[in-house]
Amino acid sequence: MSDGPKTVTAAVIVIGDEILSGRTKDLNLGFLAEALNDVGVQLREARFVADLEGEIVDAVNALRARFDYVFTTGGIGPTHDDITADSIGAAFGLAVDHNEEAMAILTAHYTHTGAEFNQARMRMARTPIGASLVENPVSKAPGFRVENVYVLAGIPSVCQAMFHSLKHELVGGDPVQSVAIAVHLAEGTLANGLTALQEKYPDVGLGSYPFYRDGRFGASIVARSQVPDRLADAAHEIRQMMRDLGGEPIEDDAQ
Amino acid sequence: MSDGPKTVTAAVIVIGDEILSGRTKDLNLGFLAEALNDVGVQLREARFVADLEGEIVDAVNALRARFDYVFTTGGIGPTHDDITADSIGAAFGLAVDHNEEAMAILTAHYTHTGAEFNQARMRMARTPIGASLVENPVSKAPGFRVENVYVLAGIPSVCQAMFHSLKHELVGGDPVQSVAIAVHLAEGTLANGLTALQEKYPDVGLGSYPFYRDGRFGASIVARSQVPDRLADAAHEIRQMMRDLGGEPIEDDAQ
Repeated sequence: MSDGPKTVTAAVIVIGDEILSGRTKDLNLGFLAEALNDVGVQLREARFVADLEGEIVDAVNALRARFDYVFTTGGIGPTHDDITADSIGAAFGLAVDHNEEAMAILTAHYTHTGAEFNQARMRMARTPIGASLVENPVSKAPGFRVENVYVLAGIPSVCQAMFHSLKHELVGGDPVQSVAIAVHLAEGTLANGLTALQEKYPDVGLGSYPFYRDGRFGASIVARSQVPDRLADAAHEIRQMMRDLGGEPIEDDAQ
Repeated sequence: MSDGPKTVTAAVIVIGDEILSGRTKDLNLGFLAEALNDVGVQLREARFVADLEGEIVDAVNALRARFDYVFTTGGIGPTHDDITADSIGAAFGLAVDHNEEAMAILTAHYTHTGAEFNQARMRMARTPIGASLVENPVSKAPGFRVENVYVLAGIPSVCQAMFHSLKHELVGGDPVQSVAIAVHLAEGTLANGLTALQEKYPDVGLGSYPFYRDGRFGASIVARSQVPDRLADAAHEIRQMMRDLGGEPIEDDAQ
């Protein structure tokens, strides 16, 4: 009996009223989805929650039990509405206090910049006791990790830099590879053939994503698998099916 | 004793592996957040889930109990991976069958276009028994509603058109109005003053959103309230505080 592919999963929690109000468009979910996939971690769920401790605690506890990793973004600045550190502490039943290593980083930073290292800025050094830090090369105030939960900043450039700081710690599985093939055929024309192919290739996930471009409807068929040979075989059969139905397969660069 | 403002809430569930894989960037959450706010409904949570019935059922049942309205997007096409109708049926314990009104709409549509109204396309007429339809002026295959859960398409243009079809059914509360004021001051400089203002204006939510533009850090302070007079007073004091700290308040059009 051979081992199947190794699957490692993650969830993302985007924290902040400004995303839910529609005022700010989230950019971190798409980044994390791709960046995680690159290191063999599959994003399986995301939640967007308000700046309310109870909501954050519930989401963290629900997701950290179900997935290998959880990443939060947002709510780690110096102002009163930045409640992520306290919420993570509450989720784990840990006290939250000024982290010595974070205090040293911020003391050095503000000595260098000349800005006052006041009590509000010291909030950015607070973590649940025992947390390890995630380096922030952009603006210094660190993220942190408690068990399998990584706490990152909300500003996209900082979130991305923090992810690059921590990604060597992640233990990924076999990456999911994908092939996307678009065609100017209606989904309803492709559906029966796709169903048959999905039954033939249970280890290749087949998704159909309709689109409307240049005044024409079509569909992009995306095949995903952790087994490269099976992916290639399935993609070959998808292209053949499209031709049999009178369509011309187009390799879809947006994959 | 006067009544406080009336608050009506909603959650969104974005269904689809293609969003979680990072391949497709979601455009519906931002649209729905703004469109709901325009009709007096506040988006309070969003979940992105995979094309798995158990995940969809759990999200629908968790959120429909907690919020006035739930909107799902995605998974209502003709292909095997379109499992939203069945999942909504499972969430409500309702059988799923071809809806007569939807069959009539699609029969007329395919008679008009000349495309075959095959079994795959008939999948798009399936709803939980007793569901009411949501008109789709773009591509005809309707969305539907069961109790407080609205089921919309994933293609952004269709999702948006469906929302416009249904929005007259929504009973909104007092809208949340917002004022956003940016300043080139660090959050750590603003934090103490903001905390004091938040205590003075408990009926105005104050959020601080740091940014990095043109090589300079700053923060956008967003005040939100259902009470316009209080919002105006709080905004006035925020601007004054910024000036007292040596900053120049900038009305932030991105609000």
